[in-house]
Amino acid sequence: MAAKQYQENLPLVLLHRLPSLNLPHRNRLSPHFLLLDPADSQEPISSFLSIHANSVRALLCVGYTPITSETLSLLPSLELIVAGSAGVDHIDLQECHRRGINITNASVAFAEDAADHAVALLIDVLRRVSPADRFVRGGSWPVMGDYPLGSKLGGKRVGIVGFGSIGSEVAKRLVAFGCSIAYNSRRRKPSVPFTYYANVGDLAAHSDILILSCSLTEETHHMINEDVMTSLGKEGVIINIGRGSLIDEKELVKFLVQGKIGGAGLDVFENEPDVPKELFCLDNVVLSPHRAVFTPESMEALIDLTCANLKAFFSNEPLQSLVQIY
Amino acid sequence: MAAKQYQENLPLVLLHRLPSLNLPHRNRLSPHFLLLDPADSQEPISSFLSIHANSVRALLCVGYTPITSETLSLLPSLELIVAGSAGVDHIDLQECHRRGINITNASVAFAEDAADHAVALLIDVLRRVSPADRFVRGGSWPVMGDYPLGSKLGGKRVGIVGFGSIGSEVAKRLVAFGCSIAYNSRRRKPSVPFTYYANVGDLAAHSDILILSCSLTEETHHMINEDVMTSLGKEGVIINIGRGSLIDEKELVKFLVQGKIGGAGLDVFENEPDVPKELFCLDNVVLSPHRAVFTPESMEALIDLTCANLKAFFSNEPLQSLVQIY
Repeated sequence: MAAKQYQENLPLVLLHRLPSLNLPHRNRLSPHFLLLDPADSQEPISSFLSIHANSVRALLCVGYTPITSETLSLLPSLELIVAGSAGVDHIDLQECHRRGINITNASVAFAEDAADHAVALLIDVLRRVSPADRFVRGGSWPVMGDYPLGSKLGGKRVGIVGFGSIGSEVAKRLVAFGCSIAYNSRRRKPSVPFTYYANVGDLAAHSDILILSCSLTEETHHMINEDVMTSLGKEGVIINIGRGSLIDEKELVKFLVQGKIGGAGLDVFENEPDVPKELFCLDNVVLSPHRAVFTPESMEALIDLTCANLKAFFSNEPLQSLVQIY
Repeated sequence: MAAKQYQENLPLVLLHRLPSLNLPHRNRLSPHFLLLDPADSQEPISSFLSIHANSVRALLCVGYTPITSETLSLLPSLELIVAGSAGVDHIDLQECHRRGINITNASVAFAEDAADHAVALLIDVLRRVSPADRFVRGGSWPVMGDYPLGSKLGGKRVGIVGFGSIGSEVAKRLVAFGCSIAYNSRRRKPSVPFTYYANVGDLAAHSDILILSCSLTEETHHMINEDVMTSLGKEGVIINIGRGSLIDEKELVKFLVQGKIGGAGLDVFENEPDVPKELFCLDNVVLSPHRAVFTPESMEALIDLTCANLKAFFSNEPLQSLVQIY
């Protein structure tokens, strides 16, 4: 099979995936690229890679399969990693930078779904949708009477942490609800009409709500700590659709349990799929299992973007979603 | 007390409320109006009313306290009913029309919260937020692995039934999510840029989602029936923030249980607080206990609107939220 496609001169793309992760819509890629999948071979992975090492210029990373410096050292000809995820914290970025390897990510494909999910979690926390649903399903309405009031979304000051494609889609939606928007990111974006805070603590102090839609890096690890949550205050709400480790999770649990912040909507956690059990009994918390970006529609968009990036690479054209590595 | 305020020449406003319903922020109204509350008096209600019958020109109706033709016949001088609700189906509109009584409602005060809640129910159904929260809380994530994908909101065709202040706020929000909007109402609205369908069945046939934000009247009672749900189709979603009886609820339950529509987000029911128990085990249904319009902020807005309408009435100025009775 591989021999046949070599003859057809299809560009070679190495699949990199944990055995548990499948490439969706594989058949959409295979007419255009020769997909080299170590799982198709009897060879052990290291000898499989050494056979193809000098031919592999592009690697397609499925999900959050780690790419370490060891993996990279086996692939001396590698020039491009196409990540099938929005975040790229599972990839050794420094080593890629050192080796001159470009990385594309999938934020663009996922931005709308991720933003929808952030807004869903936010309204859910403010208007108590999930706990109200439990209240009705549990048969409490006829017994207990009126359910407690929630809080209005319009007029709230929303601080968006990370103003890339996902953050800007979140802003677009929340403007329609009458929220006022401010943001924090590595640097001010001249084209963005909202107030910029260089420091996330300052942003928190001027916000009712923080929405985390930034990358996880050494700099952003545990950026939401005790100080930031104290600045956000007792009524403040945190929504996290980024990565669990953006927040000091132990501290967050303490703040929630002690009522030192108002609530949280969390799609990501520090040790997925484990979620701190102290959260399970809190009605001001909404939990989802890292699903912010996943719909059949976003999977389609992911494959389109993957194809576009690979075709651009092999035609020496500009990549569609190049990650800036610092 | 009443005698004292009579002397101060405050305009008289009759409170009309079920004993279980309180007037929120009563102290905001009492500096401006003499609030006549039968509950403050030892008199039986009929003799209380007969004492004041000829003085009462304005009535403030709290919540959904019914106003029947019998009530109206006790108040021959009544000119205005200020309803503290968006819907006025608890008021005998025909009899008001016959007696030349104006009615104001509170849709304007509630529109943003109601629209937020409609969007919340919709994203929740599409992206499975409440059932995902149950999944995580129940400890299923580490055991069962990935949670099933939801469906993307952007690109969906949304049909809004009733395009008053609430419906138009719903549209404003959903445009920001990339939905396409169409609507049905008693008549086409020249200022509205969306496609109009005079028939709700036609609207359903051209929609992925129906959102009900219209009044309950004889014409709209059970307007969402077997035919309309069949037109909406197997993947269709219904969101109801209007009144339970807009839908033939028995038929809706049948469609949901048999998988003949895709899902529903319901804030209102035919026999509140009773909710059909068949819905309690369905993951494609989100239930809330008639809370779409209630936040502390909307309660403030309600009192502002109530004051404004009463002041306008007693100064012979135009009412702020006059209900058109046909």
